[in-house]
Amino acid sequence: MNRTDAQTPMMRRALQEALRGARGANPLVGAVLVSGAGEVLAVGHHRGAGSLHAERDALSQVDPETDLSAATLYSTLEPCRHQGRQPACTEAILTAGVGRVVYGAADLTDIAGGGGQALAESGVETIGGVLAQECEQLNHRWSLAQEQGRPFVTVHLAQSLDAKIAASDGTSQWVTSAASRAHTHRIRQRVDAILVGTNTALVDDPRLTARDEHGSLTEHQPLRCVLGLRDVPQGAALRRGRPEGQGWTQLRTRDPLEALQELAQTIHQGHPVRHVLVEGGQSVLSAFVAADLVDEIFAYQAPIILGTGRSSIADIGVTTLHQAPRYELDPADGGPVRVMEGDVCTHLQPSSASAPQKETSH
Amino acid sequence: MNRTDAQTPMMRRALQEALRGARGANPLVGAVLVSGAGEVLAVGHHRGAGSLHAERDALSQVDPETDLSAATLYSTLEPCRHQGRQPACTEAILTAGVGRVVYGAADLTDIAGGGGQALAESGVETIGGVLAQECEQLNHRWSLAQEQGRPFVTVHLAQSLDAKIAASDGTSQWVTSAASRAHTHRIRQRVDAILVGTNTALVDDPRLTARDEHGSLTEHQPLRCVLGLRDVPQGAALRRGRPEGQGWTQLRTRDPLEALQELAQTIHQGHPVRHVLVEGGQSVLSAFVAADLVDEIFAYQAPIILGTGRSSIADIGVTTLHQAPRYELDPADGGPVRVMEGDVCTHLQPSSASAPQKETSH
Repeated sequence: MNRTDAQTPMMRRALQEALRGARGANPLVGAVLVSGAGEVLAVGHHRGAGSLHAERDALSQVDPETDLSAATLYSTLEPCRHQGRQPACTEAILTAGVGRVVYGAADLTDIAGGGGQALAESGVETIGGVLAQECEQLNHRWSLAQEQGRPFVTVHLAQSLDAKIAASDGTSQWVTSAASRAHTHRIRQRVDAILVGTNTALVDDPRLTARDEHGSLTEHQPLRCVLGLRDVPQGAALRRGRPEGQGWTQLRTRDPLEALQELAQTIHQGHPVRHVLVEGGQSVLSAFVAADLVDEIFAYQAPIILGTGRSSIADIGVTTLHQAPRYELDPADGGPVRVMEGDVCTHLQPSSASAPQKETSH
Repeated sequence: MNRTDAQTPMMRRALQEALRGARGANPLVGAVLVSGAGEVLAVGHHRGAGSLHAERDALSQVDPETDLSAATLYSTLEPCRHQGRQPACTEAILTAGVGRVVYGAADLTDIAGGGGQALAESGVETIGGVLAQECEQLNHRWSLAQEQGRPFVTVHLAQSLDAKIAASDGTSQWVTSAASRAHTHRIRQRVDAILVGTNTALVDDPRLTARDEHGSLTEHQPLRCVLGLRDVPQGAALRRGRPEGQGWTQLRTRDPLEALQELAQTIHQGHPVRHVLVEGGQSVLSAFVAADLVDEIFAYQAPIILGTGRSSIADIGVTTLHQAPRYELDPADGGPVRVMEGDVCTHLQPSSASAPQKETSH
């Protein structure tokens, strides 16, 4: 068994731990802190933007006086050396006196990368690239979003068993159950922006606010975005935000990548938009699917059949079966399949098998 | 606590046990055999046509010499007094010397009903109607099929995430995973008949045989049925059955109830068709849904998006949301939701809330 093989069981444990987090602005990261005797002292994962990084989450669970000089910290991602909304992990590792760090994927971002080298230079034994492929696959779409200079895109599909989002007379409230809608509101609470098309804005007149189970606005409100060329009327519900008239924007383009790149430059509540929830309707969803700009799907399937009515997705340029974009069940963030008051919610991500093979530079 | 309340915990156990069976030609039935001291001696359920009835399944698990004079046999359905493919349950109960029988729903069929009275007349203490509503709901669609003089209808929906059964160029092999298709073949092995529309027969030219994981024909082969007015060519795959040219029939009507009632009169392999699997296509599925002739659905959702192409369901006469036929997750036969090699299989039955309230005659 070579040095790397010996590290794989704990790295698998860290990968499992990473899946407890939610996808979005930051990559999924898991960490396991193991004593010199091989005992697991703590496990940690990253819970999303603004929360502790996985390494700090694990380190925060042990008494700061503990001697960690013989301990190993396993992390699925190279510890960051960047102070963002959270302090740098390299600093926390040095402060805690961890003797050895083993990580999976390299952090290739300009801003946070190089942590492994920094730790090594500070005298911490550092091993990188353990289960590197799995650790990279874990965030293959997040990495793609970074490369494209755009936010991570979560898509919401709320549809009948026959994939209709509205009956033929336009009625759509509500296709899905209260539990499914509550789940969507929890996602709204953690994204930076919600995006709908002009048609949805005009026809459904949604508020696009994040609300709790009592219908009250939650503290964090995402930026409300409308994609498309048509004007959104002054009186539209989504323009009546708090503070008055603020917190919404129109992206006057039909190109979804252009819209996303514009959003990545937009500051909302002090920082740029790094995670967007695309809620519909049909044209917007189809454009995002066709452009391969869907990083994550929550598909809520209500146990009703509508027959006619509006389909969730329209033409995406696929004419034959083998061209169809393929997704895979996503085990992260609550698991791949959940029952929500009679609805079935499927959690999907683009198939990693069809992901372009990336070359890493180290 | 009245006499009936005291029976409910064991009847709930019997209800749970019943759900281990598969829906079809016979109702789901569960049974629990309890000693005089309150100890569970055996549990049983009905595994489908041709298998032991639940009561006999439970009784078969105890030594025939056991003194059951102080024991109680709980059954979700009144024990039958009819010798069909299986001997009468009343006889088995008398032979075993069970002192008391508690049942839930009355058996209202002419042929098998009256078992409770027969047992009472033979000196067995008999209590009926315990959790009667739950026990009737368990088989509400089976009872409806009986009343309508038609087979029980299981529907197979194999579709993409956007509910397409074929791409726009007609390619459809395969939308779903090998595991989903294998599951369908296991259902084919237990039904009396498989039904498709003439369009499917002409376009897809399916064999409609039940095959095992190696592609070999299984022992039981269901009757292959084509619904519709157009002729099925001599060379069609489904006409090439074993024995040569036999085992298929055409139902020359567009009325699905008429077709089903004709099937109920059709003898296949020695007995009438009591369970039919409707596999498609769009027109047939829509007609069955519109006519409320779907008793059970297995919906296989493949993680692909097709955009355009053929939808699983077309017009069912619903124009506004509240008219939509509503289903509910079916916990029987493997549970409501299963992952099949990346596909999500949802098991549904028509909502019992919308089922017509039946009056029982005793």
